[in-house]
Amino acid sequence: MKPAKRRLLDGIDGYDAASVPPYEGDHATVHRYIDDHLEQHVDQLRSWLRQPSISATGEGIDEMARLVRDDLQALGFQEADLVPTSGHPGVWGFYDAGAAKTLMLYLMYDVQPADPSEWLAPPFEARIVDNELGSVVMARGAVDMKGPERALLNAIEAVVRVEGTLPVNLMVVVEGEEELGSPNLPEMINRYEDRLRTCDGVLFPFASQDAQGATSLTLGVKGLVYVDLVARGGEAGGPKGADIGGALKVLVDSPAWRLVQALASLTSADGNAVELEGFYDSVRAPSEEELRLAAGMLRGWKPMERTMKDQHAVGRWVDDAEGSESLTRYLFDPCLNLDGVGSGWTGPGVQTIVPHSASAKVDARLVPDQSPEAVVEGLRRHLDDHGFDDIEMHVLAAYPPAQVSVDEPIVQAAIGVFNRYGHVPAIAARTAGSAPWSCFTDRLGLPIVHGGLGHGAGAHAPNEYFVIDPKADSCVAGLAEVEKAYVDMLYALGDCS
Amino acid sequence: MKPAKRRLLDGIDGYDAASVPPYEGDHATVHRYIDDHLEQHVDQLRSWLRQPSISATGEGIDEMARLVRDDLQALGFQEADLVPTSGHPGVWGFYDAGAAKTLMLYLMYDVQPADPSEWLAPPFEARIVDNELGSVVMARGAVDMKGPERALLNAIEAVVRVEGTLPVNLMVVVEGEEELGSPNLPEMINRYEDRLRTCDGVLFPFASQDAQGATSLTLGVKGLVYVDLVARGGEAGGPKGADIGGALKVLVDSPAWRLVQALASLTSADGNAVELEGFYDSVRAPSEEELRLAAGMLRGWKPMERTMKDQHAVGRWVDDAEGSESLTRYLFDPCLNLDGVGSGWTGPGVQTIVPHSASAKVDARLVPDQSPEAVVEGLRRHLDDHGFDDIEMHVLAAYPPAQVSVDEPIVQAAIGVFNRYGHVPAIAARTAGSAPWSCFTDRLGLPIVHGGLGHGAGAHAPNEYFVIDPKADSCVAGLAEVEKAYVDMLYALGDCS
Repeated sequence: MKPAKRRLLDGIDGYDAASVPPYEGDHATVHRYIDDHLEQHVDQLRSWLRQPSISATGEGIDEMARLVRDDLQALGFQEADLVPTSGHPGVWGFYDAGAAKTLMLYLMYDVQPADPSEWLAPPFEARIVDNELGSVVMARGAVDMKGPERALLNAIEAVVRVEGTLPVNLMVVVEGEEELGSPNLPEMINRYEDRLRTCDGVLFPFASQDAQGATSLTLGVKGLVYVDLVARGGEAGGPKGADIGGALKVLVDSPAWRLVQALASLTSADGNAVELEGFYDSVRAPSEEELRLAAGMLRGWKPMERTMKDQHAVGRWVDDAEGSESLTRYLFDPCLNLDGVGSGWTGPGVQTIVPHSASAKVDARLVPDQSPEAVVEGLRRHLDDHGFDDIEMHVLAAYPPAQVSVDEPIVQAAIGVFNRYGHVPAIAARTAGSAPWSCFTDRLGLPIVHGGLGHGAGAHAPNEYFVIDPKADSCVAGLAEVEKAYVDMLYALGDCS
Repeated sequence: MKPAKRRLLDGIDGYDAASVPPYEGDHATVHRYIDDHLEQHVDQLRSWLRQPSISATGEGIDEMARLVRDDLQALGFQEADLVPTSGHPGVWGFYDAGAAKTLMLYLMYDVQPADPSEWLAPPFEARIVDNELGSVVMARGAVDMKGPERALLNAIEAVVRVEGTLPVNLMVVVEGEEELGSPNLPEMINRYEDRLRTCDGVLFPFASQDAQGATSLTLGVKGLVYVDLVARGGEAGGPKGADIGGALKVLVDSPAWRLVQALASLTSADGNAVELEGFYDSVRAPSEEELRLAAGMLRGWKPMERTMKDQHAVGRWVDDAEGSESLTRYLFDPCLNLDGVGSGWTGPGVQTIVPHSASAKVDARLVPDQSPEAVVEGLRRHLDDHGFDDIEMHVLAAYPPAQVSVDEPIVQAAIGVFNRYGHVPAIAARTAGSAPWSCFTDRLGLPIVHGGLGHGAGAHAPNEYFVIDPKADSCVAGLAEVEKAYVDMLYALGDCS
């Protein structure tokens, strides 16, 4: 059953990233190269944004994969190959710098769809426009993730052109299905698993600053189990293949009622506690480090939860949780969500039918040490044990949570680089969101850093942008500073551990 | 709680309509008029079918209402008027024959929509085609209900032309929204209530024969309560106005889970017993007459339930009920049906959202002595008592069951007419379906006969037809015989009680 008692954060000494010494390496010559070639770097970044690459429709996917491969070749990667998968192609790259350390870069080249009628500028023109933050590039993918990614490649170019090689070997894995939930990323990992295991860590570039320039670094993600549940009529009862008149309910079983009853058995009446037997049993208590990180987040959390409530027009959180209570739930609690349910007639007015089928989409967010396999098995067993063995279950996604310690050398190195630029990051112990980082952390045994300087917004929304040249009084890093920080990150991450 | 014990029908003497003496009136001259004018009568019937009158879209509604009004005028009705309502117009007609008795005719001029691409002939061409039964007219509305209705008007014409007047006064109420659930029929009844109360009974023409010519007469309908239930986010919790990312479920209440929980509280786990407090309390035991009628239905029920199961691909009825058990449930049990439910993402693949709203459509079928007002109140009280006072409920329809005794003189008279033509009707004590007949039976205090000879099929489906000229070996009545039986019915109903 659901954990009743919370550990409050009172009296816990919060983690403070300001305690990490700023990175001290001097790469002034490389930084100057960036300043001298900024116009060209902006063009290179825009060349990625002008190429559509919508994974949901396939538009521009092949062209974008080739563009990424060609750009890696131009940077001097000894290996730069398209990688066929069961879905959209990936790209593999290897830069052998003869260095002691090897960094894996995880990139994605696909973007969300974009409806031009909702945009101020065409979503694949990559127009440079002025907004309240300064000069920005507006395009689908500007911030999620092509902008930050091409900034990193610009930084790599600068190092290679000035120094002749890199301070660290790079293995690059680029997928074209991140926006679809990375269904075939495991295929790519499989293919290069032996070589990837020799890496020392993963860098997944990201624009980590908000509009005020505040910087954060996220160390963990929740796991995900996503299932379709379906009830159908047939031999066991209920109409098969077609809806029938509603009056016959008096004699026929109803797949719609069956699904509703099965769904309702999964949660408490308020929809907030998960009633699957054993669901909470493997939720481990937060570690000392997680509590320290949570305590460090608390000051920033209070305005953040206010903003989140306003943004989503949510009057209150579950059980009126606030402050350390809502923060610890956000970080440490699993949950079960009903993403959708559909059956029969849902239009206006009176139509009486017994629907022949009903379906629902349910997702569970997992925290350590919950296992997706156990949750999938638990769901099936729960349905069977409660008499719902007629409900079909189709698993669409299942992966565990992933977590990196703040004490990992590459995390400390990344914080050191942020601190050098005066952007001391807030360290998020975990996000409530999910991502299959476990294929890096658990499968390959590699720590991951998902971050970088820079700011943008509008991922999955119209008028997505990435800041190129901020106003003078802004705390947001412009493209030149973003690239310089990535230069430092390549050196710092190659030098650590 | 649900009635546990059934009254079986063993040992009960079943009602047999063959015991009613055949109608003996002689209207040979009028019948000959029908034979002599059959071609013209087919044209008049087709003129109604060629005029679209789709209440769902409004197509042709005004034209059809005027056509009905004009045809009543041409038949010599002293009053024939369009009647404005809050929806589509109705038509009122009065034929004063100076007779002792007055019959109310209830007609509908609207039809279901029709997609021409699914039809063998254009749905509003009214083409005469041959099928396995003989020569039929194919059109939307051919059998539901314009065909049988215009046949009745043809019969009225024949009587008036031959005899100079009718054997009974007629008050005609025609609505244009039957296929929408008759939302504004009460307005028309209100307007003419004082005059309609002076009638002696209601005739609602219908093609009562199946494809083998077997004839039935239905004496009762169930009542209906139809509600929309809606859950929304807002001040009390949950996202308002827009869906949000599924990861936030850990902090936000879910309207979708709330609705599912509220729905599930309405039935047993198998979806078949109604858990509303008091729902079954006012279900009265079947009367002696109802049991006698049910026993009379039993022999025909056994092949009929087999056909129904095959037609709807239903492997079994609820609780494996069969024979007298399934028949008595069909006739005497109320039920609660989930017509539809919708929320969030129901398309293919993974999309994780907390939906901001969820809605469902639920209908209850009522039997004597359940009251729709009590069921509506009971639903609201149940939701409130179970902590679901946040669930909105919108009542779309609410009317009681309606029942006519087989001993009513107009029912006996109608059976006598059927028997005269050798089509002894099976008497259905009740159908599982619903119709607002209570506005005739309870409000106006009038018995109703819903029947006539003739056969058609395809109501609410493509290739709807009505038989005009059956094959020689068919037991289905052709148009001439249908009209002759309506002539006899006008005399018999005008003469009875």
